[in-house]
Amino acid sequence: MSALTPHVLEALSVDECLQLLATRSVGRIAFAHDGDPQIFPVNYQLHEGAIVFRTDYGGLLDAIHLSIAAFEVDAIDPEYRTGWSVVVHGRAEEVWKPAELVPLRTLNLRPWAPGARDHYVRIFPRSITGRRIK
Amino acid sequence: MSALTPHVLEALSVDECLQLLATRSVGRIAFAHDGDPQIFPVNYQLHEGAIVFRTDYGGLLDAIHLSIAAFEVDAIDPEYRTGWSVVVHGRAEEVWKPAELVPLRTLNLRPWAPGARDHYVRIFPRSITGRRIK
Repeated sequence: MSALTPHVLEALSVDECLQLLATRSVGRIAFAHDGDPQIFPVNYQLHEGAIVFRTDYGGLLDAIHLSIAAFEVDAIDPEYRTGWSVVVHGRAEEVWKPAELVPLRTLNLRPWAPGARDHYVRIFPRSITGRRIK
Repeated sequence: MSALTPHVLEALSVDECLQLLATRSVGRIAFAHDGDPQIFPVNYQLHEGAIVFRTDYGGLLDAIHLSIAAFEVDAIDPEYRTGWSVVVHGRAEEVWKPAELVPLRTLNLRPWAPGARDHYVRIFPRSITGRRIK
């Protein structure tokens, strides 16, 4: 690194990524819908290795169910150019089996946007990548 | 709204969205690459109605040039469930004409990640939408 680029970009291990994902509650989910990229902020929790969030019936739920999604969480200080970013790729799916919903309903998982939003979407990671700038 | 959903979701005008975009410096860009959604945080500035950010040659630049992108900026308080989110859709393109690069190089536009990142990408909005939760 030269004096002009004193920051160091460091790749994070999957374990580090999972630890960082557990420290935040808002992420942004991206997926393609009718060929166009869509992106939304959601409140999420990490549950048994999967990203889980709530949404309403229709709209986002219809669009994202069974889509390949990219889910990003970060903590960035733009002034000091430090922080980290973690991206999870995987298939998003609505959780509908009652036995699987029971534990999800006990999570402290409040949707960011108002409304009932009593449908749960889960992303099982196909890949988890992250980077940190020191 | 019931007592259980005291928050109000409000659609923002384009002018409000542009004003909010001007208040932040980190956003997340989403686009499809080889059919899979990609998402990255970037430092950006609003310049003459377009989103502008810097990146390295290769990697992100190759993937995003001429892609339809979705660019999201937000300020969310997960605890109080308040905040706003703005999404810009448009075609991303590298700016390469010298006459267009001159004003971009005068922006206080520092990339989040280290490295020279002396290529500029611009997104002219095809649509701008936003929502606020009070």
